[in-house]
Amino acid sequence: MKISMSHGAGGEMMQDLISEIILSNIQKKSVNGGVGLDDLDDAASIPLDGYEIVISTDGHTIDPLFFPGGDIGRLAISGTINDISVMGAKPLAIANAMIISEGFNSEELERIIKSMDQVSQETGTSIITGDTKVMEQGKLDKMVITTTGIGIAEKGKIIRDNGLEVGDKIILTGSIGDHGIALMAYREGFGFETSLKSDVAPIWEIVEAALEVGGVKAMKDPTRGGLANTLNELAEKSGVGILIEEDKIPIKDEVRAVSEMLGIDPYEVANEGKIVMGVEAELADEILKAIRKTKYGAEAQIVGEVTDDKHVILETSLGGRRIIEAPIADPVPRVC
Amino acid sequence: MKISMSHGAGGEMMQDLISEIILSNIQKKSVNGGVGLDDLDDAASIPLDGYEIVISTDGHTIDPLFFPGGDIGRLAISGTINDISVMGAKPLAIANAMIISEGFNSEELERIIKSMDQVSQETGTSIITGDTKVMEQGKLDKMVITTTGIGIAEKGKIIRDNGLEVGDKIILTGSIGDHGIALMAYREGFGFETSLKSDVAPIWEIVEAALEVGGVKAMKDPTRGGLANTLNELAEKSGVGILIEEDKIPIKDEVRAVSEMLGIDPYEVANEGKIVMGVEAELADEILKAIRKTKYGAEAQIVGEVTDDKHVILETSLGGRRIIEAPIADPVPRVC
Ligand SMILES: Nc1ncnc2c1ncn2[C@@H]1O[C@H](COP(=O)(O)OP(=O)(O)OP(=O)(O)O)[C@@H](O)[C@H]1O
Ligand SMILES: Nc1ncnc2c1ncn2[C@@H]1O[C@H](COP(=O)(O)OP(=O)(O)OP(=O)(O)O)[C@@H](O)[C@H]1O
Ligand SMILES: [Mg+2]
Ligand SMILES: [Mg+2]
Ligand SMILES: [Mg+2]
Ligand SMILES: [Mg+2]
Ligand SMILES: [Mg+2]
Ligand SMILES: [Mg+2]
Repeated sequence: MKISMSHGAGGEMMQDLISEIILSNIQKKSVNGGVGLDDLDDAASIPLDGYEIVISTDGHTIDPLFFPGGDIGRLAISGTINDISVMGAKPLAIANAMIISEGFNSEELERIIKSMDQVSQETGTSIITGDTKVMEQGKLDKMVITTTGIGIAEKGKIIRDNGLEVGDKIILTGSIGDHGIALMAYREGFGFETSLKSDVAPIWEIVEAALEVGGVKAMKDPTRGGLANTLNELAEKSGVGILIEEDKIPIKDEVRAVSEMLGIDPYEVANEGKIVMGVEAELADEILKAIRKTKYGAEAQIVGEVTDDKHVILETSLGGRRIIEAPIADPVPRVC
Repeated sequence: MKISMSHGAGGEMMQDLISEIILSNIQKKSVNGGVGLDDLDDAASIPLDGYEIVISTDGHTIDPLFFPGGDIGRLAISGTINDISVMGAKPLAIANAMIISEGFNSEELERIIKSMDQVSQETGTSIITGDTKVMEQGKLDKMVITTTGIGIAEKGKIIRDNGLEVGDKIILTGSIGDHGIALMAYREGFGFETSLKSDVAPIWEIVEAALEVGGVKAMKDPTRGGLANTLNELAEKSGVGILIEEDKIPIKDEVRAVSEMLGIDPYEVANEGKIVMGVEAELADEILKAIRKTKYGAEAQIVGEVTDDKHVILETSLGGRRIIEAPIADPVPRVC
């Protein structure tokens, strides 16, 4: 079988590939009873005395490297900080592996590093080790960055993506579709006529605020495959259903308009600065209030609740209901 | 300035790039006083209570993916296990980020994963998390793998690459030049007429045996830039010189012959299953004995000693002396 773009697009096809080729061929998939490969969570963990060391890795193949709202550097470090954060772990450090094409402009490389430094300083997350490889002209498109993050949580305090229970509320920390749609519009050449930009941002502060209140049951960042993929993953792993109210989902008018123009579902595209959080119903309002005080959480909304239905259902503005399926693939290639 | 192949070839040009573009643009480079970016060691560390958490990352761009002695999977997991090991830390877990070209054969992907599993099982190092991206046809040559390793050591027990002292002995754990020369010969099409193969192997067992004896002062794995680069790095960082006896350096006859044929210095090419170790003189024989009992350390030799000379000097078979300079670049592209 030949690997296709869909196999790397964060949806069902990628999940099947990971199951069939990776999970089934690896025997040792966890350490000390921590979160491991079979859990397929945003990160893994290694229990160590009173702690859990949390680790996550992501390769970044975004094209173009510089886009409205950010660049591959900001994306790489934020994306990995976010996968650590949505486990309830404080991000401590980043490992930075870069693979660069021969002929790449060193001034652009410098811009990208400075961009990473900016996020590093904003979050207090250090860049402590890395690697640099160069591939010959024509063997690699521009550059890719693989970041790996290390974070820390108290033993037993990790937040998984399978912890939802019937009655929990679903919080979405801000507008959906920004990153994927902004990127697509920019590529198609009409990004300049819009104010669309990626939401790429490090969101540990949002998690910290929510954990301070308590009652956080499950979290996931809605990257490839978008809100639709994330809601389905949370529901399926928790063995529950989710009911979402369309009216409550924050979405910028321009994102909505441009996604219709492009024929892309904004619920299926990657977001790079958002969290989908399942929380105890009694604490939902307090958590929402705390999140709204944070830099990137000002537009957070309670968008729905957990049901025993086993499907992800959207209650539309008109009052009808439709199923939100897990996407086969994120519709935007090279999106992160 | 345009990035050249030499900027990714593990020698002086790469070091300059890292200094000028990366180190100078990052402010936060360490955590809790641990080994950080400025130390430019094989890995970094995060002190945590009575431990040091050790982290290392490497991108793997080797071409071809399957070569005599191994494949990119074996290389990726071993290379990272080795960078953790030469800090004196026990490797615990691996993060596996793969970027694959559209059209890549899934059977080959499966072979590569099984290869990683084999090393994982041999070493007890679990593969606990990862990522999968796909780039369009023509945008990436076959595939690249970035592995990041997590290991553990006792607080204060990390072995750096700057700890050599005058009088220490230098141990080389086996034959030099195998990986780079075998790869080059295979690419040039005459690998079949030789028995040359990569030495790619995970060498924690060698480190463990040496640490058991004690007296290990400094370690480095002689990857890109080879023995020459590693000796110079150890010497420069420690503020000492090193005197090596050519007669003592293990080198396979075939490696020597083929490197002459290819016009490549076997001291400058990557090795993927070796360690250069500086040890207390009084314990050198005992450490050597312990290393020789291990699977990959049977041909270990004491090859020289640490001087106050500030150069790396080779005493040749004929009794002359020449300086071993740090290479500008590893002569074999896409070597790891
Ligand atoms: N090549 C791989 N090797 C090992 N595990 C993998 C690999 N690719 C993916 N995984 C695992 O599959 C799960 C899903 O990966 P995925 O990349 O979708 O997570 P994510 O990083 O949260 O999402 P995104 O990459 O879109 O940001 C994770 O638990 C990840 O560790
Ligand atoms: N892009 C980068 N970002 C941050 N640090 C980097 C980067 N590239 C290299 N480094 C740092 O520079 C030092 C030298 O890196 P190098 O890759 O040569 O080490 P190595 O992994 O031991 O060798 P090799 O890659 O040949 O196996 C390391 O400390 C590494 O952390
Ligand atoms: Mg995630
Ligand atoms: Mg991610
Ligand atoms: Mg490296
Ligand atoms: Mg090394
Ligand atoms: Mg290395
Ligand atoms: Mg991922």
